Amino acid sequence: MNINQKAVNTLRILSADQVQKANSGHPGLPLGAAPIAYELWANHLNHNPKNPNWVNRDRFILSAGHGSALLYSLLHMFGYGNLSIDDLKNFRQFGSLTPGHPEYKHTVGVEATTGPLGAGVSTAVGMAIAEAHLGGVFNKEGYPVVDHYTYALTGDGCLMEGISYEALSLAGTLELGKLIVLYDSNKITIEGDTDAAFKEDVAGRFEAFGFQVQTVEDANDLEALSKAIEIAKAEKTKPSLIICKTQIGYGCPAKVGKANAHGEPLGEENVKELRKFLGWDSEEAFEVSEEIYSHYRDLAAQGAKKEEEWNAMFNEYADKFPEEKAKWDEFYSDIDMETLMNNEELFAKPEKSMATRAVSGEIINKLKDIFPNMLGGSADLGPSNKSEMKDQGFFSAENRQGRNIHFGVREMAMTAITNGIYLHGGLKAFCATFFVFSDFMKPMIRLASLMGLPVAYVLTHDSIGVGEDGPTHEPIEQLAMLRTIPNLNVFRPADYTETAVAWVAAMGSESTPTAIALTRQNLPQLEGSSKEAIKGAYVIAEAKNSDKIDLIIMASGSEVELALGAKEELEKDGKSVRVVSVPCMDIFEGQDVDYKESVLPPSVRARLAVEAGATMPWYKYVGIDGAVVGMEGFGASAPAKTLFEHFGFTVNNVVEVAKGLIK
Amino acid sequence: MNINQKAVNTLRILSADQVQKANSGHPGLPLGAAPIAYELWANHLNHNPKNPNWVNRDRFILSAGHGSALLYSLLHMFGYGNLSIDDLKNFRQFGSLTPGHPEYKHTVGVEATTGPLGAGVSTAVGMAIAEAHLGGVFNKEGYPVVDHYTYALTGDGCLMEGISYEALSLAGTLELGKLIVLYDSNKITIEGDTDAAFKEDVAGRFEAFGFQVQTVEDANDLEALSKAIEIAKAEKTKPSLIICKTQIGYGCPAKVGKANAHGEPLGEENVKELRKFLGWDSEEAFEVSEEIYSHYRDLAAQGAKKEEEWNAMFNEYADKFPEEKAKWDEFYSDIDMETLMNNEELFAKPEKSMATRAVSGEIINKLKDIFPNMLGGSADLGPSNKSEMKDQGFFSAENRQGRNIHFGVREMAMTAITNGIYLHGGLKAFCATFFVFSDFMKPMIRLASLMGLPVAYVLTHDSIGVGEDGPTHEPIEQLAMLRTIPNLNVFRPADYTETAVAWVAAMGSESTPTAIALTRQNLPQLEGSSKEAIKGAYVIAEAKNSDKIDLIIMASGSEVELALGAKEELEKDGKSVRVVSVPCMDIFEGQDVDYKESVLPPSVRARLAVEAGATMPWYKYVGIDGAVVGMEGFGASAPAKTLFEHFGFTVNNVVEVAKGLIK
Repeated sequence: MNINQKAVNTLRILSADQVQKANSGHPGLPLGAAPIAYELWANHLNHNPKNPNWVNRDRFILSAGHGSALLYSLLHMFGYGNLSIDDLKNFRQFGSLTPGHPEYKHTVGVEATTGPLGAGVSTAVGMAIAEAHLGGVFNKEGYPVVDHYTYALTGDGCLMEGISYEALSLAGTLELGKLIVLYDSNKITIEGDTDAAFKEDVAGRFEAFGFQVQTVEDANDLEALSKAIEIAKAEKTKPSLIICKTQIGYGCPAKVGKANAHGEPLGEENVKELRKFLGWDSEEAFEVSEEIYSHYRDLAAQGAKKEEEWNAMFNEYADKFPEEKAKWDEFYSDIDMETLMNNEELFAKPEKSMATRAVSGEIINKLKDIFPNMLGGSADLGPSNKSEMKDQGFFSAENRQGRNIHFGVREMAMTAITNGIYLHGGLKAFCATFFVFSDFMKPMIRLASLMGLPVAYVLTHDSIGVGEDGPTHEPIEQLAMLRTIPNLNVFRPADYTETAVAWVAAMGSESTPTAIALTRQNLPQLEGSSKEAIKGAYVIAEAKNSDKIDLIIMASGSEVELALGAKEELEKDGKSVRVVSVPCMDIFEGQDVDYKESVLPPSVRARLAVEAGATMPWYKYVGIDGAVVGMEGFGASAPAKTLFEHFGFTVNNVVEVAKGLIK
Repeated sequence: MNINQKAVNTLRILSADQVQKANSGHPGLPLGAAPIAYELWANHLNHNPKNPNWVNRDRFILSAGHGSALLYSLLHMFGYGNLSIDDLKNFRQFGSLTPGHPEYKHTVGVEATTGPLGAGVSTAVGMAIAEAHLGGVFNKEGYPVVDHYTYALTGDGCLMEGISYEALSLAGTLELGKLIVLYDSNKITIEGDTDAAFKEDVAGRFEAFGFQVQTVEDANDLEALSKAIEIAKAEKTKPSLIICKTQIGYGCPAKVGKANAHGEPLGEENVKELRKFLGWDSEEAFEVSEEIYSHYRDLAAQGAKKEEEWNAMFNEYADKFPEEKAKWDEFYSDIDMETLMNNEELFAKPEKSMATRAVSGEIINKLKDIFPNMLGGSADLGPSNKSEMKDQGFFSAENRQGRNIHFGVREMAMTAITNGIYLHGGLKAFCATFFVFSDFMKPMIRLASLMGLPVAYVLTHDSIGVGEDGPTHEPIEQLAMLRTIPNLNVFRPADYTETAVAWVAAMGSESTPTAIALTRQNLPQLEGSSKEAIKGAYVIAEAKNSDKIDLIIMASGSEVELALGAKEELEKDGKSVRVVSVPCMDIFEGQDVDYKESVLPPSVRARLAVEAGATMPWYKYVGIDGAVVGMEGFGASAPAKTLFEHFGFTVNNVVEVAKGLIK
């Protein structure tokens, strides 16, 4: 058996051993797709295992994240981050470097957290956009300093998920020629033959998207794979799909081609049979010969050489193009929160009433100059979201330098692509749509939160203020939905200043994504609003007698104005009312107890919250003795003013409810 | 001008007038697509405006729901539900029959609530599945009692959304030949030319899905449209796509072909120009000549005749096939909650520990006999979700009688299709996946809630109990996410009895969907669990001294066992502890104050909630003085037992936290 075949089988054996030892996991894909991964990593992928952060490395995303054992086997054999054989033995155990699905930041060499199907390949589209954009910005003749491929390995599941269609259709439109999708086509899903639910002509679909499509009839044929990858790399306009026909559970006679190869351990006996079928020398689990390790070390060394060559080119580039080099350094550095907070221009506010979406639009257009590496776009609602960076052009096949992105009506893929743009490195990213459509973004916002990506979501039309478009377009429960996602900051600013703070929090964030909910309708600039908003909640108007507070009214966004109006009325009536603006509960939660109690003194139990959304998030603050003026059901279709009145978002109603709380 | 042309223009004028009077809405689609809608409704759609509930009517879904003015114009002109010209004048006003987007149950003749793009056409796939299944069950030679088409009118936006790919790929696989998609192809989206984001070869894509594809080069050519529809109807195996090339804002010289025709009123002056361009007689808004009304009345009368013919056939069928007729009546009737609650077999519980997903599987298999009209399936996780109805076959091109559906890895489309199956009438429907993937279902669950559809969602693997698959697969915030959706009942049952109650609530529901979150891991059958669960929350174990309760512990699902364990420990220690099981907060919220206070006496403020999920939902009950043992961040990859211990879901930890609460 030649060394390449042994090397392929190593990935198979190590994957099967991991799953078997953990007694949990997915052996089917690793056994079938090992040759694809091997051929790519050994002979095509430009990467340097000794420097996983090399900026011009090719990206590899295991979109079929359940095949994690394969990825860990690769990372171990290529010597990434010293992932040891003991780490493989700890597959899927608490705290190990080898969790059930690949986790970004957790395991060196993992480019993105994957698992939810379709997410990885869509994220890869974002990486390919980033590569094309950075190349467009920085490359000079003879100096292709940003010039790499993005590979995604997908299964049937990835390609059935809607998000993958969205992302790949856009990839075709944008002519992302350096995106190469490898399709592990094994014709089997958990419920059986793919024909039961997926008779689609996948090649035809990808051709319709504008892809170059090739088929490798037997993925065990390394030469055929290599040739196909070469052809894909040579095609610079069309992105590529390589359909690699595989057998799930290859090598394991009892399981090959069967659905039960997918997601359960093979069983001790079957692992033995696998070793026999593959002609594997050792019967000991996790044992790999020095010959094979040595082969992989040689392969890894090629990668180091490639980075050296690139470094030499980059040094010449830096000398020859000092301006570009300065810009490069700007792209690859960051600006901290404090600096942004002290940026006077960002906080220069107008007198006039403005919708916070319009404020956001102004701030985006200030930020675009502060962050020349910021990319963003909308799911076909740019004019409404006010999300366009003026005079920055739109990213397209013709204009790689464009900084705005037409995502099309594809909220979920947009969100994954935004993740990918950030993950690539060198860029900051945001995306935009109507707040109600954050429903479509949810699974990918969750992934951003899990990965800790400081991206931003511009979510306009944030309440029944949507008006005539009616309940399908009026967010109710979306604030609650987003606030419960761990590691996501959800802002709902009340005016210019708070919107600026929200954006500063977003752009100054290191490892937390930020969602900003913004009004369609105009709001006044509030007297007491301040940069204190960065604490998540603050006293925007103190009670007239701060020693004897009769009531605290909390509110966010458009309802802060109402809270202030109610305070005025109630204080005319002799009450003493504090108003707390709560632009970001998530950040407020992170403040120390002293600050939290200074804003919401535990002794004051008469508490009222006002927010044109589901009430659930507020009970933590108002408790059993308080009340929430919120939305108990869906909205309706009517002019916004009518709706606010109908649903009780008036000063009068807030005063009425407040009176019931004051003892 | 011939009467057909006048009739087409009537739809255009009425639509433009509605939007203009409301000063809000979307004139672009109605102006461009009016001939498509007219030709279909006038000469192809089998419908009887006088009986919108005729079971064998063709279904028409305006997937591009923003074109609602067009639908209202059609419904008015055809005489549906006496939708008056005054109703059109009240377009988008509070309480009107003509809200911003079409709303099911609200306006007679609206088959589904649409607006979120892609949802309508995916729902239509569900209707076509329902039609094929019912036909398979009931039709006899010469008696095609269920035999109708399902039409969906879509725009570019619908076809860019991932859900539409998911649903239509499945439609091709299932050979839903009576599904006909009409594509209003105007090459314009809100951000401009579709080429910016959507260069996809739509015809090629649909061919890849297994559709018959035709193109009508000019949608103003009624004859060409008619011919294409005829050809589509004649094709009984492949579903059809008819690409109808239109001009957005047709007839309005200042706006035709422009993005700004889409979503804003044309303007008074432009409406005048529209009238001129179309050669419209009257300058008065909303004025339609008697000649045109008369023409539409004649068209509507044809429909009444078609229903009469069908009625005659059905009466013969009923005579000839009494067994089938009895079954038909069963399909078209319902069973009330009380009857189900009294069904002993449903509540016959085992002694042994069982995962609630396994319980659910048993109950589904009891329900399948009680409800022979129940269809259901999973997004490729049937074996894990335990969602298969045994010996009922799988719905496919070859087996229309199959009651299980292989949805494929398509959670969002699955949910919309489930909506469509129910909306069709005659059937009940559920769908299943891992709970964490309810994220992908969210937008369509919301639509089900908004429409008030009593469908059921089987959501297994409902916590960190998922174990080794890790944080991407472990639901944390999903309970909170679903609980905040208005009009959705979210159950998280603790054992067999509560799971049976959850299913009874789901199947006995009239207008509320039900989500059931179920464990992967085994749970014991709890002593105190009872049918009281139908109240949403109940005392599952009373404090040893019910007159002096030291603490109330609330919990749901797998954590009820922990709460009971903690009670035992605390009571050994002399405390008096009540345990409240909360299988469904949403239903508990609807109970009267007396009941709620009997379960949670206002005087007892030492309250603790335990749930392996985000804590937000519980503060309404524990208040400021209570505590929640829940998940503050994402999960991890490890055996489930390790995770429960690590994250504090142990009797010891619950006891510890409880002690801090008892004064």
